[in-house]
Amino acid sequence: MGTPHGRWPLARLHRVAKETGSLLCVGLDPDPERMPKSEPDIVAFCRSIIEATRVVALAYKINFAYFEALGRTGWDTLYRVRELLPDTALLIADAKRGDIAHSAERYAHAIFQELDFDALTVSPYMGSDSVAPFLAHSDRWVFVLGLTSNPGSADLQQQSLSSGKSICRTVLEQAQAWPRESELGFVVGATHPTQLADIRTWAPFSWFLVPGIGVQGGSAAYVLQKAATPKAGVLLTASRSILYASKGLDFGQAAGEAARSLAAETYPFSQLLEK
Amino acid sequence: MGTPHGRWPLARLHRVAKETGSLLCVGLDPDPERMPKSEPDIVAFCRSIIEATRVVALAYKINFAYFEALGRTGWDTLYRVRELLPDTALLIADAKRGDIAHSAERYAHAIFQELDFDALTVSPYMGSDSVAPFLAHSDRWVFVLGLTSNPGSADLQQQSLSSGKSICRTVLEQAQAWPRESELGFVVGATHPTQLADIRTWAPFSWFLVPGIGVQGGSAAYVLQKAATPKAGVLLTASRSILYASKGLDFGQAAGEAARSLAAETYPFSQLLEK
Repeated sequence: MGTPHGRWPLARLHRVAKETGSLLCVGLDPDPERMPKSEPDIVAFCRSIIEATRVVALAYKINFAYFEALGRTGWDTLYRVRELLPDTALLIADAKRGDIAHSAERYAHAIFQELDFDALTVSPYMGSDSVAPFLAHSDRWVFVLGLTSNPGSADLQQQSLSSGKSICRTVLEQAQAWPRESELGFVVGATHPTQLADIRTWAPFSWFLVPGIGVQGGSAAYVLQKAATPKAGVLLTASRSILYASKGLDFGQAAGEAARSLAAETYPFSQLLEK
Repeated sequence: MGTPHGRWPLARLHRVAKETGSLLCVGLDPDPERMPKSEPDIVAFCRSIIEATRVVALAYKINFAYFEALGRTGWDTLYRVRELLPDTALLIADAKRGDIAHSAERYAHAIFQELDFDALTVSPYMGSDSVAPFLAHSDRWVFVLGLTSNPGSADLQQQSLSSGKSICRTVLEQAQAWPRESELGFVVGATHPTQLADIRTWAPFSWFLVPGIGVQGGSAAYVLQKAATPKAGVLLTASRSILYASKGLDFGQAAGEAARSLAAETYPFSQLLEK
């Protein structure tokens, strides 16, 4: 294929999306209280989910909270799951980091070098220099929180600045002007259907990482219609609806079916993408 | 003393500050490239710093970035350093977490239960429900990012909303109205001296965690004059100026001297605190 592992220029994401025929991002949020009783081991559970979904997963998103909550061995478990992830998919560290530049540089080292993720999520609250150390990594992806899927997105993100623009819009516009070597995308929740078309106009060339379908109530079809374009796709993210599709022995099969069903909805939009 | 370890109601912080005669918070950001050549081991380095500073440290702030950057063993190193920290000080996880409630609940479990920190830093960008799981822990402390010490604080935090109030002020006012079992404080950088008096009026009863003195350029004396009151103190935070006070064999002694010198500046303000 010619592109070294860990290098995901925009063109590769478009090409792999077309080849896979999918815009699906599988979220790994392994929760011992929700996992099937037949598979209590986190790594084995994740292995089964990955094997069941890899044919249709354009990306995987690993939620660091669920690994840190495991306690002292959580970080090692994170590494073990990272090693199971296929390098045919974009691998996203969902860690929502944000700190002053010295610290952000250390977080970037941890996530891009030590863990060798292809992408991560970051918070914009601390501004440009807190994100710059991530943006310095060429052919990695930085997904900046824009409008998140939770109710609290109303507290700040949807407030209007004196410019008349919302904070979310301001973040999207500012971020597109930041110097960068990386690729840049935004986290935009599926739970704001009436705003999706507007948000797309604020960042017409940026991929969106879209959580909030399924359990959180967003509609995959609506997200795709409003936000997936030939120039910029959406990574349609599903976690709980795939991981816990069945609590029985057939959890892997059920996860695979849930993933294929969602991926099929994304297929036409994957084929729209420009080379 | 009667207060179980890990329980820090406001009254205990005031009492310990008066007894210790200090408002100093020692930041542990162990960076192998800056550590003395005579002590390359992170845990041993941190042990020396802790031993040299514990008499005058009201709090310790552990910067997760520097542990995660260590790679696969980083999280275990974090636990080992955590075990060295004295339970006579407020122990702050500087992790700047912020995620939807399900994930935030897992982060809270990791930091308050598994790691048994007394306090943490959180980002307000995702709003009230992203912070609520941390606020549910009684007698722990949640420090919400207000106005951070870095240049990027101008990008959002200092912007004005259509209400005429800055985002920083809005965060402080919103957060004080959130239901909580925990104690609540704010991160306010020392690099905004002309704004400190105003910021204090927006949250007159909240402790401030104040980074940015020393290497970042803020003045300890000015911070204390403007923001330390009898009802609410400041945790005056210093990291690099203590950790790397000497690169020689005397690094522990130099760290102790740097800490004592700063603590002495805070002494009069520690004695002002109301019971």
